[in-house]
Amino acid sequence: MKKYLKIIPMVLLFLLLISITVFANTGDATGITKQTVKEIGDKVTLDNVAQAASATKIGLNYVWMILCGCLIFFFQAGFAMVETGFTRAKNANHTIAMNLVVFLVGLVGFLLIGFAIMFGGVGNVAALGGSTGLDKEFALGGWGLFGYKGFLLAGGAYDVGVFVYFFFQMVFMDTTCTIPTGAVAERVKLSAVILNALFISALYYPLYGNWVWGGGWLAQLGVNLGLGHGVVDFAGSSVVHAMGGAAAIAGAIIIGPRIGKFTKEGKPNIISGHDIPMAVIGTIILFFGWFAFNGGSTLSGSDLRAAVVIVNTMIAGAFGGLTSMFYMWIKNGKPDTSMICNGSLAGLVAITAPCAFVNSISSIVIGVVAGILVCLAASIIENKFKIDDPVGASSVHLVNGLWGMIALGLFADGTYGDGLNGIKGGVTGLFYGDAGQLVAQIIAVAVVIVFGIGSQLLFWKITDKTIGIRVKPKDEIDGLDIPEMGAEAYPEFQYKEL
Amino acid sequence: MKKYLKIIPMVLLFLLLISITVFANTGDATGITKQTVKEIGDKVTLDNVAQAASATKIGLNYVWMILCGCLIFFFQAGFAMVETGFTRAKNANHTIAMNLVVFLVGLVGFLLIGFAIMFGGVGNVAALGGSTGLDKEFALGGWGLFGYKGFLLAGGAYDVGVFVYFFFQMVFMDTTCTIPTGAVAERVKLSAVILNALFISALYYPLYGNWVWGGGWLAQLGVNLGLGHGVVDFAGSSVVHAMGGAAAIAGAIIIGPRIGKFTKEGKPNIISGHDIPMAVIGTIILFFGWFAFNGGSTLSGSDLRAAVVIVNTMIAGAFGGLTSMFYMWIKNGKPDTSMICNGSLAGLVAITAPCAFVNSISSIVIGVVAGILVCLAASIIENKFKIDDPVGASSVHLVNGLWGMIALGLFADGTYGDGLNGIKGGVTGLFYGDAGQLVAQIIAVAVVIVFGIGSQLLFWKITDKTIGIRVKPKDEIDGLDIPEMGAEAYPEFQYKEL
Amino acid sequence: MKKYLKIIPMVLLFLLLISITVFANTGDATGITKQTVKEIGDKVTLDNVAQAASATKIGLNYVWMILCGCLIFFFQAGFAMVETGFTRAKNANHTIAMNLVVFLVGLVGFLLIGFAIMFGGVGNVAALGGSTGLDKEFALGGWGLFGYKGFLLAGGAYDVGVFVYFFFQMVFMDTTCTIPTGAVAERVKLSAVILNALFISALYYPLYGNWVWGGGWLAQLGVNLGLGHGVVDFAGSSVVHAMGGAAAIAGAIIIGPRIGKFTKEGKPNIISGHDIPMAVIGTIILFFGWFAFNGGSTLSGSDLRAAVVIVNTMIAGAFGGLTSMFYMWIKNGKPDTSMICNGSLAGLVAITAPCAFVNSISSIVIGVVAGILVCLAASIIENKFKIDDPVGASSVHLVNGLWGMIALGLFADGTYGDGLNGIKGGVTGLFYGDAGQLVAQIIAVAVVIVFGIGSQLLFWKITDKTIGIRVKPKDEIDGLDIPEMGAEAYPEFQYKEL
Repeated sequence: MKKYLKIIPMVLLFLLLISITVFANTGDATGITKQTVKEIGDKVTLDNVAQAASATKIGLNYVWMILCGCLIFFFQAGFAMVETGFTRAKNANHTIAMNLVVFLVGLVGFLLIGFAIMFGGVGNVAALGGSTGLDKEFALGGWGLFGYKGFLLAGGAYDVGVFVYFFFQMVFMDTTCTIPTGAVAERVKLSAVILNALFISALYYPLYGNWVWGGGWLAQLGVNLGLGHGVVDFAGSSVVHAMGGAAAIAGAIIIGPRIGKFTKEGKPNIISGHDIPMAVIGTIILFFGWFAFNGGSTLSGSDLRAAVVIVNTMIAGAFGGLTSMFYMWIKNGKPDTSMICNGSLAGLVAITAPCAFVNSISSIVIGVVAGILVCLAASIIENKFKIDDPVGASSVHLVNGLWGMIALGLFADGTYGDGLNGIKGGVTGLFYGDAGQLVAQIIAVAVVIVFGIGSQLLFWKITDKTIGIRVKPKDEIDGLDIPEMGAEAYPEFQYKEL
Repeated sequence: MKKYLKIIPMVLLFLLLISITVFANTGDATGITKQTVKEIGDKVTLDNVAQAASATKIGLNYVWMILCGCLIFFFQAGFAMVETGFTRAKNANHTIAMNLVVFLVGLVGFLLIGFAIMFGGVGNVAALGGSTGLDKEFALGGWGLFGYKGFLLAGGAYDVGVFVYFFFQMVFMDTTCTIPTGAVAERVKLSAVILNALFISALYYPLYGNWVWGGGWLAQLGVNLGLGHGVVDFAGSSVVHAMGGAAAIAGAIIIGPRIGKFTKEGKPNIISGHDIPMAVIGTIILFFGWFAFNGGSTLSGSDLRAAVVIVNTMIAGAFGGLTSMFYMWIKNGKPDTSMICNGSLAGLVAITAPCAFVNSISSIVIGVVAGILVCLAASIIENKFKIDDPVGASSVHLVNGLWGMIALGLFADGTYGDGLNGIKGGVTGLFYGDAGQLVAQIIAVAVVIVFGIGSQLLFWKITDKTIGIRVKPKDEIDGLDIPEMGAEAYPEFQYKEL
Repeated sequence: MKKYLKIIPMVLLFLLLISITVFANTGDATGITKQTVKEIGDKVTLDNVAQAASATKIGLNYVWMILCGCLIFFFQAGFAMVETGFTRAKNANHTIAMNLVVFLVGLVGFLLIGFAIMFGGVGNVAALGGSTGLDKEFALGGWGLFGYKGFLLAGGAYDVGVFVYFFFQMVFMDTTCTIPTGAVAERVKLSAVILNALFISALYYPLYGNWVWGGGWLAQLGVNLGLGHGVVDFAGSSVVHAMGGAAAIAGAIIIGPRIGKFTKEGKPNIISGHDIPMAVIGTIILFFGWFAFNGGSTLSGSDLRAAVVIVNTMIAGAFGGLTSMFYMWIKNGKPDTSMICNGSLAGLVAITAPCAFVNSISSIVIGVVAGILVCLAASIIENKFKIDDPVGASSVHLVNGLWGMIALGLFADGTYGDGLNGIKGGVTGLFYGDAGQLVAQIIAVAVVIVFGIGSQLLFWKITDKTIGIRVKPKDEIDGLDIPEMGAEAYPEFQYKEL
């Protein structure tokens, strides 16, 4: 056989000859001749050119939002890997299945009810380049609490502008659904998680979302009370992350700690994740999707501020991760991979609200503070409050989501946001001269704490009293995979005696 | 060391001061001053503006197709993880290597022969904004069987329009190559899989592809026989999935079941996959890529119908997964993670043909039916026909690919598809008044069954009689990794005695 | 419960009825009515149309670069999986943490110093559609050694054009940071890797990068000495890969082989990777990202040559992988999954410089040669030079990065590159008539070897003498996870006695 290797040089020489000769007659190899005006129509008239330019401008918005939406959807994989990697092998099938199922269920809740409640009363969809469905039907200025058009995407909502907006909003909403699963992992019933995903997607997320993004009362604090631009949350530090984190901590409180997490004296034991590389890859996937999450929130392909958004995102995420790394390194003598991951995510969560409104140095500050906050919060939640949040969802998403809202109120530098929520001029934080914006942001923080945590405590309590939220102790000790899912995650691998 | 932590506040304060002062002199922080007309050329004339608008419109198409093509390429990772996760650890190196190699081989077959056969006789490439290579050389109206231009992308095919189309079509074709590997996994020779990838990429896929997408005889059933728009398959329920599934079931039939799959009495044993989280992540990756798979099939960045396409895709996939989950939950008392995955994929396969032509409620129906079909088909194929398809490729891709073709013939609502295959007006299914479209779709189903399954049965039979398709029984029992690939997938981990 | 399944048909029928009736009143379901001229402004005037067309053209560039940048960022996941999969389980936490941390650190070095050194002296940013920050301040023609504007993205660099360019360049730079980690894996200290990431991001990469891409002296060999277009490297065969590979081999030389890699007689032992599927998925992720890496290097969404770029990329990668597969198959009687991966990557590295300038057949030749080179180089580096490079980073990135530079000087066919580095006409290699281009490329190769390997040898030597670069032998034998990171990667799984 080896002799055949010797013919390779001859084959290559032959290919080279073909390459030189056969390509003499090329087509349009650079596309320059293609960029003619024939795309304009039969004749080059001003109307035809205007038509083509307009169609392309709108098309670019759709391409941008759809592709960003795809990358955000990929968050599912990131969360699934982080949560599964940071929990134990005996629950891995259950943990990863939760992460897949909340998306499936969340779509139902958001399609049937949630989307209409969130956006069915206002004109946001207009940002996409016109829409005949939900477009501009309600002007800003009232005190909106919820919308009521667009259920099932039926009737007048069968409109490309509404559909593309639904797609983009759906993958955002889904992030909120998937955050609490990590906090209640390794002891929760799949059925309770399904119920919560329905609650979040149909009511919990859309209501707060309407108030901030749907033209609701928080967005109107500027118009109505003169507080800056009203509550501003560019890509969802509060709408998506803090609300998800609120659900996480409420769930962890009601369900209680895992068996063996705390000693009788209340000292926490370390319960290691079973697959650290899986969690790290999950973190990288989330970092990856975050560029689309924040960048895509321009909702417009020709809003060049997206460039600032993504660089700020990158800066805060990196400084968050580094800060957590060095913090743990200095404190414990060793870096901690799980805190490098959570520090990066904390920086990303915190920059999500202010990313469009701040400069690169402020992004460093926001990331560094997030990296410290996540370490402190994780420690306080576990050691002081005795709450068992296996993957740290509360310290990452709740604490830093709220920090992000405050940070916007401090660091927004006034260069961007003209016209947002009906207010002229750029969004400006305290350090750049507008205390009103900070007040609005603090109101949002209070609402997340009261409405977010409150309604989720209620949800988990009621569900616990009715169908029950926690598996039997024996099932928890043996692992949830067999009793809940009927199959082990890794049926062939041998575990250590721990 | 810990004292260093105390300097952090001072550093942050210092950064804050810099942030406020140094950014006083900003560049163009929003990009508004950038959006001047200097991109137009030296002077703003109608011709110059037309030129810029035309170039951007075409550029947008290329950006859209390239980025969608990238995401579709990522299907490779999805299929590799689903197939490897759902099979056993002793074959994991072999299973995942197959998935990588079919792409490498498939490129050769499609580059040298397949692409020319599929598209070398028609004008589809024109959709990309003009092309001097294969463009418009053959008009619709004949009874095309195959094309014959563009081999090796040489000569006149050295054209950007042809190249971008090749890229997009190549990643589609590759999906068909990779579907059957799951059905013959854990017992097939790598060499047989390589041969099949060559066969699929050079002839099998391009022929049927030419008939439906290359302006061939199935596409012309509308023009020639008045059957609706002729066979319509928006993104490949039949071209990609049912043809892949046909190869899968044919391979599984000829190669026979894995040792130990059936008892002597013919009762199937359960052979669990070795890494369920891997398979779930693979499923999420496929779901992710599917948006680009279906959305990108508009072939145009300014066709806003893409918004409807992706939302329908999401709906059918989610309802498919949920339906399978509840179906198994009700039937067996527990949800089954592998069927949640396969149900989602079934919904996605089924919506692939009709996604552009139906509304959101029809998408729900299509997804629900797919979720039931995949459970029933998996059971019938295994229990009744005694065919061993380790990952369920036949029930997902063949059965639901065909269901998707029928679904289009039933639910297409007439709002889209004007001019497709040379027919005026929107594509319309039975429930909206056009029985002819359904007849065309049924003809396509018959062709897939006869040509697809038939030619693949022949391929596997001939290959079996010549080089052989199955490893030795001893190798199968020990695992294929060492005898076929020379290395274990996980050489350090200890397996349980099963 | 099972009786509930029977109501499904009725539900579906009900949905069907809704579907037909409720959608009678649709919105704008195709978006055709949306593509009106209202995006143009209040009135359709030539100036307004010009403004819209210009904004969209620039917006398209930003969308293209941001989305490509995202996919390139995803390289992080690919490298992390390849390097971790190909090394041992006892070091998996350490190996994957290195891959995450170099990005975090690299951002700091590049943000604070590197970006300004690389691009702060020239006008490249103009390519993005105008920028008021770094734009066109320095004309080509001098003998640039480094830039000095844009530190911290502060002052005039707070500009969308600069930010988007920073984002794109940052993810490129990061690839260079992450290549050497594989070569020193399983014995290096995390602290040494962090230092190197700082060195690479702040100085090492930006200096060479300035010379080739920042308008520095290598780029000016055409203008100043008449050597073709000066050094040309479309997407970084040398700037990114060979420079990364140079760091890899220098590190592997100074740190020395892993304990047990060579027998006393100097014979190499095989040390198998612990998770081959992980490495294969990582390879697919890299392949996926490479389309954006090379395609995005057009820096313009309306440069249709991107189509040629991505197809050439695909061809060379596939032929590289196939060649390595058959080479090993013929030589050893079995294909080798790790060499299929490395062969694909070798083809991709090699085509990175020439991808925009060659035709499809030349891409085949380039890929085939890369597939052979990587096998030969891996063998020579290990058997002859006794260098232990656990993942083959030197043979993939250094050897084939240099081959890619030479290949450009041989195969560039003159159809593309008009105006590049200030030279008229397309870039043309030796086989198409310009020996000068080949000379320029050879100069670049010499610079990589002398400056790249030289400075990295120095770095590793100095670091070794100061803080030390290698863990204690006991830690290396036990695994780096506990001593370096404080936690095992897989604490629950049982390992075999090897």
